[in-house]
Amino acid sequence: MTLNPALDLTYTVDALVPHATHRVATVAERPGGKGLNVAGVLHTLGEPVLATGLLGGATGRRVTELLAAVGVPASFVAIAGETRRTVAVADRHDATGFWEPGPRVTTAEWDSLLAHLRDLLAEADVLTLSGSLPPGVPEDGYAVLIRLARDAGVPVVLDAGGEALRQGLAAGPDLAKPNAAELASLAPDARPADVLAHGARSVVVSRGPEGLLALAGDDAWQAVPPEAVTGNPTGAGDACVAALARGLRDGTAWPGLLADAVALSAAAVSAPVAGTVDADAYRRFRPAVTVTALQG
Amino acid sequence: MTLNPALDLTYTVDALVPHATHRVATVAERPGGKGLNVAGVLHTLGEPVLATGLLGGATGRRVTELLAAVGVPASFVAIAGETRRTVAVADRHDATGFWEPGPRVTTAEWDSLLAHLRDLLAEADVLTLSGSLPPGVPEDGYAVLIRLARDAGVPVVLDAGGEALRQGLAAGPDLAKPNAAELASLAPDARPADVLAHGARSVVVSRGPEGLLALAGDDAWQAVPPEAVTGNPTGAGDACVAALARGLRDGTAWPGLLADAVALSAAAVSAPVAGTVDADAYRRFRPAVTVTALQG
Repeated sequence: MTLNPALDLTYTVDALVPHATHRVATVAERPGGKGLNVAGVLHTLGEPVLATGLLGGATGRRVTELLAAVGVPASFVAIAGETRRTVAVADRHDATGFWEPGPRVTTAEWDSLLAHLRDLLAEADVLTLSGSLPPGVPEDGYAVLIRLARDAGVPVVLDAGGEALRQGLAAGPDLAKPNAAELASLAPDARPADVLAHGARSVVVSRGPEGLLALAGDDAWQAVPPEAVTGNPTGAGDACVAALARGLRDGTAWPGLLADAVALSAAAVSAPVAGTVDADAYRRFRPAVTVTALQG
Repeated sequence: MTLNPALDLTYTVDALVPHATHRVATVAERPGGKGLNVAGVLHTLGEPVLATGLLGGATGRRVTELLAAVGVPASFVAIAGETRRTVAVADRHDATGFWEPGPRVTTAEWDSLLAHLRDLLAEADVLTLSGSLPPGVPEDGYAVLIRLARDAGVPVVLDAGGEALRQGLAAGPDLAKPNAAELASLAPDARPADVLAHGARSVVVSRGPEGLLALAGDDAWQAVPPEAVTGNPTGAGDACVAALARGLRDGTAWPGLLADAVALSAAAVSAPVAGTVDADAYRRFRPAVTVTALQG
């Protein structure tokens, strides 16, 4: 589920010079938004998946076209506003980003999303909720969606930060996956156990190259990648969510679940394009992840 | 006629910082391309106009929607490629521009454009040709269009630079309107008379705040704006073309034609949004332009 998707544009230029005009050498367009990355990774792994959320206008139609081009099944609710764009201008040194604010969602559109999700949940095995809430969606939006999933008997993975995370946790998602910054958005000194105290039934904190830390009830694990992986870390958290969602669906035990999530995250870092994974790297990393049970 | 139109995006940010991520405060979308500016100005003046050219993909559909929203009649030929975007990032100091390269036009699409223009010329009183040729259109593309217009008895205004201008001039357009840079693109020391030597029947050189210089046969005129106008010079040349096209249609004598073109250009500079004119400024400037016949 991606409530605030985007059309991601990447422009390559020779060098970014403020207040000059640049002829863009190459333009890459891809469906953007954390939930679309999750869907894309699961589709790459051959898992059945359906991307949903809110899309509108010409940019929304373009996102739909791009999803269809890579074969990711999608069923979005149409909104009147224009889906936002993000523009990343890459030069020889680094990227410069411009994020549009995105459309305002009306109450009627939010209600349509709820009705649509209710229909989809009847066929779903697991629901992932990823990213920011667009303007107009209530701050407890994720809590509402989590309750719908619980009513349908569908487990939920929540990947968000700030108020969207805090209010979502209150509805008791099966699993929350904050990164370090999102964890700190709950409170400056928040610890993984605080995510459970806020309501989640389990938590996996992603800590970049240090791997994952997981808590479930009285159990705690640490999972560490086999080697330092260089590449593009954008989308690594979404690959982690994809692995966790698959494991939650299959009832995979925690050590195997975490090893899979670390390997798939590292394989996303290895892949140059955000939101994709390097399948060879995934197969290589998978047996080499170290998972350790921690003392409570 | 706009063969290489664009979806123009203007982002406002607080300050552009290379290699940082910026939350865009406001997004303005408008139909971009010199010919679309010409059509927009004529529409604002209440003149009947039809915008045409090549549009494709989701960005092309968005351009069509935006033209319809402001009521400019349009009839474009659809191409398979995606119409390009331009992104201008405005901060407190100035704008930073990013221009996408634009789609490649196929031979079949170019042939469709020729057939479509032939149909439109049957109802047209004047044709304007503005801006660059997209990849795939032959370098003598404007010459081909000018010959079609001549066969239909429709006068042509050509506003281009470089090889597109040079090869277009060879077909004998009724009027060419290079600016100083476009004139210099013919040859470093090119003079207005050289535009006639290349084939145009008359020429108006736009010289920014210094106004216009016109040559037609043995006659020469200079037209100077009534006051220094501050504002946004983008689109002033397109407003000039709009005035010249209207005058050509109406058979307006040169002094009145040039006074109108100077006033409308200055009114475009006065309007903050590129491609629009300040109607009050136009009425104020119109009687105050100085037109002088020059000695040959």
